[in-house]
Amino acid sequence: MTRMFIRADKSVLQEAITPTLCAVAGKSTTAALECLMLHATEEGILEITGYDLNKGVKTRLPVLVLEAGGVLVNGSQLNAFIRSLPDGEVSIATDERLVTTISCKKSKFELHGISVDSFPTLPELNGEKRFELEQGLLKKMCQQVIFSVAQISTKPHLTGVLFEIKENNCRLVSCDGYRLSIRNEAISLMTGEEMSFIVPGKTIGELIKLLDESEEKVNVELTRKYIIFSFKEMIFFSRLIEDTYTVYQKSIPSEYRIQAKVELSEAMSSVERASLVIDEKTKSPLKCTLSHDGYMINCVTANGRVDEEFSIEFQGDDAIEIGFNYRFLLDAFRGAGMSGDNEVMLQLNSPTLPMIIRPVDHDEYLYLVLPIRL
Amino acid sequence: MTRMFIRADKSVLQEAITPTLCAVAGKSTTAALECLMLHATEEGILEITGYDLNKGVKTRLPVLVLEAGGVLVNGSQLNAFIRSLPDGEVSIATDERLVTTISCKKSKFELHGISVDSFPTLPELNGEKRFELEQGLLKKMCQQVIFSVAQISTKPHLTGVLFEIKENNCRLVSCDGYRLSIRNEAISLMTGEEMSFIVPGKTIGELIKLLDESEEKVNVELTRKYIIFSFKEMIFFSRLIEDTYTVYQKSIPSEYRIQAKVELSEAMSSVERASLVIDEKTKSPLKCTLSHDGYMINCVTANGRVDEEFSIEFQGDDAIEIGFNYRFLLDAFRGAGMSGDNEVMLQLNSPTLPMIIRPVDHDEYLYLVLPIRL
Repeated sequence: MTRMFIRADKSVLQEAITPTLCAVAGKSTTAALECLMLHATEEGILEITGYDLNKGVKTRLPVLVLEAGGVLVNGSQLNAFIRSLPDGEVSIATDERLVTTISCKKSKFELHGISVDSFPTLPELNGEKRFELEQGLLKKMCQQVIFSVAQISTKPHLTGVLFEIKENNCRLVSCDGYRLSIRNEAISLMTGEEMSFIVPGKTIGELIKLLDESEEKVNVELTRKYIIFSFKEMIFFSRLIEDTYTVYQKSIPSEYRIQAKVELSEAMSSVERASLVIDEKTKSPLKCTLSHDGYMINCVTANGRVDEEFSIEFQGDDAIEIGFNYRFLLDAFRGAGMSGDNEVMLQLNSPTLPMIIRPVDHDEYLYLVLPIRL
Repeated sequence: MTRMFIRADKSVLQEAITPTLCAVAGKSTTAALECLMLHATEEGILEITGYDLNKGVKTRLPVLVLEAGGVLVNGSQLNAFIRSLPDGEVSIATDERLVTTISCKKSKFELHGISVDSFPTLPELNGEKRFELEQGLLKKMCQQVIFSVAQISTKPHLTGVLFEIKENNCRLVSCDGYRLSIRNEAISLMTGEEMSFIVPGKTIGELIKLLDESEEKVNVELTRKYIIFSFKEMIFFSRLIEDTYTVYQKSIPSEYRIQAKVELSEAMSSVERASLVIDEKTKSPLKCTLSHDGYMINCVTANGRVDEEFSIEFQGDDAIEIGFNYRFLLDAFRGAGMSGDNEVMLQLNSPTLPMIIRPVDHDEYLYLVLPIRL
């Protein structure tokens, strides 16, 4: 199946190519990994697939198939060519020597294709276990935990997001060793089974970009080594991290000496301002003082000095002085704000124990941040 | 004059600081060059000045001066602090130890100031010769010639834009050795004198950013070593390039064997598409064929092959085949389009001689591009 000849509208083609690009490898020693697989079927469908051995995206669109067949073409080149064309009908034709001609009106591109035999074998895309979530909701849940995924770690599980599904609850957990994010959501399970698996942080990052804010359902399926998300006219799949997630529950205290209700936007802009004197290299901690008088943030570095103050609802016997990495605070506040909360509860025990940030009235999410010694 | 104390609205302060930042040096061994000079006068004016020894910007704004004085503060820090503050009245106070406190509501920044004595001496900002141009017009004229200023050259004059003012005409010229841009505009001279001077390309780049599209006049003054642009509440000045501009007129042919009228948007998108197979490293030329049959662009590289075609109004005996760097063509077409022309005239003599691009009906501008051997 070498020769191929299709016709389709430029904008429709472009829309189908864009999401597949996230699964095209950058510079690779294997040219096929830099390619998209185009596969035109007798049934009048063009399948476009990108797969970098870790994650893949497949889109399908109805086109005019004059000759069914398939070819691999460089993904970024194909995208640049299609994007640059004038609006109108585009034809893509591959001859027996794999020379692929893309033309529209009086513009014509020729590029060298590769045989589809060189493309890596795709995994099985039908899982046994499955569940559903709304696109917009899944996107938000992922955004609320992705920041605390470890970028690099000797413990592979920390570079991923744990999905724990049981008793009609879907829980996402991430932890980079300094902070922990937990996001819960009630779901109705299709198969009633419990599931627990770890999705690479990079996959979650790409998934966030592919999902929109709609209420349309995403079908999530699970095989032994892969997770498959199906939505719109798209299948997004990724290898799982084969590791065991650490028991994280015991790091969350059950009692707190101090509680403070904080207005989110005020807290965030104070931390942002205070961060202006911090040098990214030295990473000086912000000194936070919580008391009946309010929340004070102070920071003194070689660059200067900042003092910030805002009022809080404080519960506790005496004031606490605790140091934090400002980025960790901002990330947690932003994550909390994403659920629409304007206020959060801060819960603390001592300057050497973690602080918990959670909603005032519900337990949809929880963030835990380790302090820095002042 | 060390101590200083002023109050002003945050957004007004921010607006006065922003334009001065372009004249603050980046990392410098002289801390004062990374600073802005704040100078509050008894008359209730705050002057903010940036000067990196080559170019400078001074803005003036009325503020509440509680104590007249001056201080140097790090420009990017000051900007970041002011920008981050909540809306409202900001106070800036410098004490005798030069500690400068910026405060607004419950936010307070302290940073270390430097004595104004460390600031470089500003040049004389009153020129003898002067002329006026509308802001929007001057901006467009600069944009139409800046692309052909040499980035680096052993000939200092090529790194600048020549201003030639005589007989009520203002001409801007730039040339990087491969192409030449000329832009003419009728003006009424204040002093009737002829002027000729070279402004550094980097200065012109900053000037473009500072100018808006309005019809408000810019007052341009000239001293022996400096050019001074005054507009809005701002003075922008720059050192001139002390060199002699090469005689450029003789490189423009007076007769042409071939002429072709070209639709600009069509030509530009064809060149843009054709450039997609060009590797930035090898810089393969675009083969352009002009004939009674139309304008054809072909390019074959290791990345693939492109063929483009569009119709033109051709005058000449026989076809011509000529090679160009695609960037030079695009720059010239874009520059021409800026004057609102939809069509331009291409004028050629041979595949080894320059091509001229100019408006169909007037001589407001002219671009000359050298070909590349195919």
